[in-house]
Amino acid sequence: MKRFNTSPISGMQELLPKDQAVFNQLKSQIEQVYRLHGFQNIETPIIDRTDILLAKAGGDTEKQIYKVVKTAETSADADQALRFDHTVPLARYVVEHQNELTFPFKVSQIGRNFRGERAQKGRLREFYQLDVDVIGHDHLPIAYDADVIFTAHQALSLILKPRFLIRISNRKLLSGLLQELNLVDFADQIFTIIDHAEKVPDTVTRQALNDLDLSNTSITKLLEFVAIRGVSSSVITALSALQVENPTFKTGLDELTAVLDLLKQQGIADQVIADMMIIRGLDYYTGSVFETFLPDYPAFGSICSGGRYENLASNFTEQQLPGVGISIGLSRLFAVLGPEGLLKVTTQPPLDVMLLPLSVQQYSAASQLAIKLRQAQKTVDINYTNKKLDKKLTHAAKIAHYVIVIGEDEVTSQSFKVKDLLTSQTHPLSILL
Amino acid sequence: MKRFNTSPISGMQELLPKDQAVFNQLKSQIEQVYRLHGFQNIETPIIDRTDILLAKAGGDTEKQIYKVVKTAETSADADQALRFDHTVPLARYVVEHQNELTFPFKVSQIGRNFRGERAQKGRLREFYQLDVDVIGHDHLPIAYDADVIFTAHQALSLILKPRFLIRISNRKLLSGLLQELNLVDFADQIFTIIDHAEKVPDTVTRQALNDLDLSNTSITKLLEFVAIRGVSSSVITALSALQVENPTFKTGLDELTAVLDLLKQQGIADQVIADMMIIRGLDYYTGSVFETFLPDYPAFGSICSGGRYENLASNFTEQQLPGVGISIGLSRLFAVLGPEGLLKVTTQPPLDVMLLPLSVQQYSAASQLAIKLRQAQKTVDINYTNKKLDKKLTHAAKIAHYVIVIGEDEVTSQSFKVKDLLTSQTHPLSILL
Repeated sequence: MKRFNTSPISGMQELLPKDQAVFNQLKSQIEQVYRLHGFQNIETPIIDRTDILLAKAGGDTEKQIYKVVKTAETSADADQALRFDHTVPLARYVVEHQNELTFPFKVSQIGRNFRGERAQKGRLREFYQLDVDVIGHDHLPIAYDADVIFTAHQALSLILKPRFLIRISNRKLLSGLLQELNLVDFADQIFTIIDHAEKVPDTVTRQALNDLDLSNTSITKLLEFVAIRGVSSSVITALSALQVENPTFKTGLDELTAVLDLLKQQGIADQVIADMMIIRGLDYYTGSVFETFLPDYPAFGSICSGGRYENLASNFTEQQLPGVGISIGLSRLFAVLGPEGLLKVTTQPPLDVMLLPLSVQQYSAASQLAIKLRQAQKTVDINYTNKKLDKKLTHAAKIAHYVIVIGEDEVTSQSFKVKDLLTSQTHPLSILL
Repeated sequence: MKRFNTSPISGMQELLPKDQAVFNQLKSQIEQVYRLHGFQNIETPIIDRTDILLAKAGGDTEKQIYKVVKTAETSADADQALRFDHTVPLARYVVEHQNELTFPFKVSQIGRNFRGERAQKGRLREFYQLDVDVIGHDHLPIAYDADVIFTAHQALSLILKPRFLIRISNRKLLSGLLQELNLVDFADQIFTIIDHAEKVPDTVTRQALNDLDLSNTSITKLLEFVAIRGVSSSVITALSALQVENPTFKTGLDELTAVLDLLKQQGIADQVIADMMIIRGLDYYTGSVFETFLPDYPAFGSICSGGRYENLASNFTEQQLPGVGISIGLSRLFAVLGPEGLLKVTTQPPLDVMLLPLSVQQYSAASQLAIKLRQAQKTVDINYTNKKLDKKLTHAAKIAHYVIVIGEDEVTSQSFKVKDLLTSQTHPLSILL
């Protein structure tokens, strides 16, 4: 016999049933929060047009995208690849179906995305992302930025054990500051330097700015800006104190103030800080940007992030479609935080009740009992094997909460004893109905 | 601007939010039935090893499989492709994890599979399948065949409006008959002829058998066998009357009898017929085979089918892993039966309550009200746009069941009027809490 390697390919999520149950539980809790907050669910295809997926991409995305080989019967189709996030297919979806959608379009997407990158712990190649986005037609009020942040906060509160903080900034602040300082030509480099500032000593950041041959005044101002972080009121005061007159900066300040105010109204001000070091790298964000982190476990980095993009689908349509979105990378959270015991999970046996008919003569009674218990929303299995009773009880103890042995006497008397396999106590059937 | 084609690739399922909601509702009803019947959910990766996926394949599968191109960072990996069903990855999964599973392993799989075939109505390239399987270790009692059929029956009852019938046979009957008639060398051809018998006139079937140069006695016996169908008792009588002594035939008869008896005990005998024309083509089934069809809409063909395979993973392990499974092709059902109004769906507005604060001053009150309503499990959105009230009401009427306008007076008096957008009636807030 040819030897096959039966392990999943490296970087794929494949869980044992008990772990899958926990994963599904976390996923459905987040889904429910998204629903309660008024987001409508959609699913885009996993396979999409390569030119659509790569329209705006660059850098790593292009190197990591999984292309799909056309078959004889699909040879006439466009080039195809697997989606690497939910945002690009969403842009195509909104353009394609815009006449049939109502705006603001509050949408959730829950599913697997694919990136062929080097596999490492918590960095999967096939991974679940749970996104919410709000898409406007022409215009989208800043309040929706707070709406998605609050939604993510509510979802994360349900699944995270340790306290977490949401860090918020607005890219218009730095953009405006660079305009004021006449440093627009250096924007890409400076955004990148600040994006990395957190991971390196201050001296390195200062040196990197120095290397750009900026004036000392500019460097001082930039470092002063980057150091601003804290609770809402203090940050707004500090940003105002910079006395930047540039209108983009002022818009950014107004937007940040509005978002912080709204989150205060939602009652989560103590889990929100404004932090000018938040940039979100080379992403397509143009306004609000946010990250979430665990202050007691800083090594995990951002566990949920997102931001505002002024134009979701600028590559596909002239129509202005501003949006704001946030994504929870559940596969990563599960892989990284799960083993550390940092996720709120209630583990329970996979099965509520296992029925053990003693012989074929009791199959019919077992069926009737199963139907009754399932009507009471209990998950029920019947063991039809001809193993010895003690073996069946051992098997039941592995997967079920309760076991009911069904013999001739039980059927005749219609009196069934329910054994709780967790406590070894015995109960009448009524506790399950 | 470059013109992009923003339509999904042909053969992909992409639904508007209202249709997605219906699809999700059907999917979660079936999921719930699977859970209640004691099946544990797992998810295998969508990308798997090509040699695993194609280990047993042949014919169309090999032509229709979507291969995935490795990226620079995954170049060291095995050749990869997208799974085309749930059964092959399940075989790999059970072999890989067998020491950590409990047997009989009752497992459900719900997700998308991929086949690059010619796109046509109801025949998608990316499609949902909702499977249940029971896998035994060494041995699996015949009662599990009835278990998966009953589970599928319960799921289909929840989602199908028209009556449906489950047709059952057992491939050991025909195999045994061919042994008895010394026609084992013609088995493949005869199985194929009988598999097609339903779609062609009887004369064509007879001619096809004639072309194999079989004796008249054999042809008569085969046609007599194939014509046997009906309710449980009549079929068992007719099969016994064939007086076939072959032990494989007898085993098949015993198994079929057992399955029909168990389904009678489950109370679904009137929706089950035994039918010797059911073969399930060139599938890997070795015992029970079943199909489901709508007698009033025969053109739709089988809407759910499955069977028993004596050895799930014979290509990957020496360990005997018998299994029995059934699959509901929900994307196909949705595409074919949905437009005909043949699916039980309850359409409701995507949103329970839309809150309309009249100005920024009422945002805080709206937030508090939203939190309260969400605690009562209502899905709630707040319209933050600065559109005119009548426009906001029109928007709300498109997506919400209820609307609450929040002005200064409402906030001061803490008295909110709930307007039912379906009936135009007004209610106090208490009806939502």
